[in-house]
Amino acid sequence: MTGNQLFGQIEALQSCLCVGLDPDLDRLPAVLDGEQYPLFIFNREIIDATAQHAVCYKPNTAFYECYGSWGWQQFEMTVAYIKEHYPEKMVIADAKRGDIGNTAGRYAKAFFENMPCDAVTVAPYMGRDSVEPFLAYKDKWTVVLGLTSNASAEDFEMQDDLYRKVIETAMQWGTPDNLMFVVGATRPEMLARIRTFCPDNFFLVPGVGAQGGSVEDVLKNGANSRCSVLINSSRGIIYASRGDDFAAAAASAALNLKMQMQGIIIAR
Amino acid sequence: MTGNQLFGQIEALQSCLCVGLDPDLDRLPAVLDGEQYPLFIFNREIIDATAQHAVCYKPNTAFYECYGSWGWQQFEMTVAYIKEHYPEKMVIADAKRGDIGNTAGRYAKAFFENMPCDAVTVAPYMGRDSVEPFLAYKDKWTVVLGLTSNASAEDFEMQDDLYRKVIETAMQWGTPDNLMFVVGATRPEMLARIRTFCPDNFFLVPGVGAQGGSVEDVLKNGANSRCSVLINSSRGIIYASRGDDFAAAAASAALNLKMQMQGIIIAR
Repeated sequence: MTGNQLFGQIEALQSCLCVGLDPDLDRLPAVLDGEQYPLFIFNREIIDATAQHAVCYKPNTAFYECYGSWGWQQFEMTVAYIKEHYPEKMVIADAKRGDIGNTAGRYAKAFFENMPCDAVTVAPYMGRDSVEPFLAYKDKWTVVLGLTSNASAEDFEMQDDLYRKVIETAMQWGTPDNLMFVVGATRPEMLARIRTFCPDNFFLVPGVGAQGGSVEDVLKNGANSRCSVLINSSRGIIYASRGDDFAAAAASAALNLKMQMQGIIIAR
Repeated sequence: MTGNQLFGQIEALQSCLCVGLDPDLDRLPAVLDGEQYPLFIFNREIIDATAQHAVCYKPNTAFYECYGSWGWQQFEMTVAYIKEHYPEKMVIADAKRGDIGNTAGRYAKAFFENMPCDAVTVAPYMGRDSVEPFLAYKDKWTVVLGLTSNASAEDFEMQDDLYRKVIETAMQWGTPDNLMFVVGATRPEMLARIRTFCPDNFFLVPGVGAQGGSVEDVLKNGANSRCSVLINSSRGIIYASRGDDFAAAAASAALNLKMQMQGIIIAR
């Protein structure tokens, strides 16, 4: 997926919504009891219900790995379903992988060759050779952790402006057409600060909803003239209802977020 | 697995060898062609051949994920095989995971509940709440990336002594009985420096062999009075031969490393 394809989606839908597909067997609606692949069926219903409002889906690998190879299979089924039925939607594997070059290449192969993901989140701690194997894929995106949404971002990321060093250094490895950064919604003033030295790259922004960030604050502080922000919501959408109406409730929650975005994206 | 059980193994075998199980379909011996689970069969032969020399096995998840759910299944089979046939050996899932608390808990569940791994490698970038869910498991080990063996460790880890901040901070989260650090063999002088402020925790040391580090340098610089070092070798053992004699060649390579260790471990 190219940058222009992604911009086109955002403009067409007037939405920069990313739906986080983080299903938890213990929280699925009872109507899915007894399904052979409940995580996948749940995701499929959520995807069909929200596709008119979202430009992007982001399954987090942890929620599949914890169920072993059966979980991993449903991760693969989910990615395949999106790219088959909604090829224009971006799929971000939220994997936060990072390893030495030889091994990072295996992770890139897992998400970009063995599966048709468009993007992968990557941890920067080990430096350039742990990130470059992902950047080597044409029309794929590498999403490097910059400043994350959790409280403990203060332990290392915010010490001595490490997040800034990471973002400025990684900007030399990729381009705004293949490199994004994770910047959390929970510190909106930091989004504005990061935009000053990173004007063009996309920000993938988690932390809206359950974690406390707001759409308006994120866009006002983080968007540039082409938006270049993807706002993720997971629990607020997929668990909007735990009844039989879970898909309709997810659609409502996604629509609600999209409408918050529309006023601001149109207005720009 | 407790610290005393691990120390017991090291003393009994006079070895601190960890065998990295990073199988690559393109490099497996031809004798395995046509197997339904070639990665697992390869690993099983390597494990049986090296168990008398190694205290630890370290499969890296990237080498399984790149084959999708079929690869993940063979990862599970490998871990299960070791804990069934060699329960005294430590199994380290080299996964380098790291995510916000809620999600990190899922990764911990994947490796410590869904599989019987004894340890997991964890990336520190996101701070305390991304590491604590692993430390919460009794008699399991969290192996935090400190100073890695790759050249790009210079990009961030070695800037402003970040590796030191990470190690000293993480030492407050765990104990020498549940927390280790990854410290690469490629900068042996750094092993000695890190020992000065981290006297008791185990170091998991990759980078011997293909990456250029030596057993003697690692032990002389990194061991404490109880050793507290695990030295990993992957490619040097598992690809010692690509012929039908691959298992025997792996045994020889492992024995060779063990003999280099014995002289130093006994002598202490």
